[in-house]
Amino acid sequence: MTKFMDVHRGMVGITAEQFREAHDADVAIQAEEGVTFEQAWADPEDGVVYCLSEAPNAEAVQRIHQRSGHPADEIHPVPLVV
Amino acid sequence: MTKFMDVHRGMVGITAEQFREAHDADVAIQAEEGVTFEQAWADPEDGVVYCLSEAPNAEAVQRIHQRSGHPADEIHPVPLVV
Repeated sequence: MTKFMDVHRGMVGITAEQFREAHDADVAIQAEEGVTFEQAWADPEDGVVYCLSEAPNAEAVQRIHQRSGHPADEIHPVPLVV
Repeated sequence: MTKFMDVHRGMVGITAEQFREAHDADVAIQAEEGVTFEQAWADPEDGVVYCLSEAPNAEAVQRIHQRSGHPADEIHPVPLVV
């Protein structure tokens, strides 16, 4: 398992409720790809969302996000953490 | 205080030791600007680093990173967290 940071753009104006719903939609199906979404952060003004997950590979992360209707624009393995 | 996610690019090949040293350099002086760096993640292959902090404003985060020799390319307030 590897940690991944993925980035979503174009989320300008996202509300706390919409953000929570999007995250819950991912979490509801994450086990089907062996993914665990750990935390996510949103900047509603610039419309950027960052999601931290643990997953077997980036494709698994993307499949969950796609099925939830919000594919990621970038997915980076982040093997180094401090 | 607000949470911020900042992004550094061009860090291709960064090692675990270099990453730890860069983080430690920030932490050593963070109090002078009222910043707390909470966690950071690096993708050495694409050379991207993400830093999560709590700070009075983005300028304070940038002043610490600049003094440590690694200014951020982007700094986003992330008021929404799940």
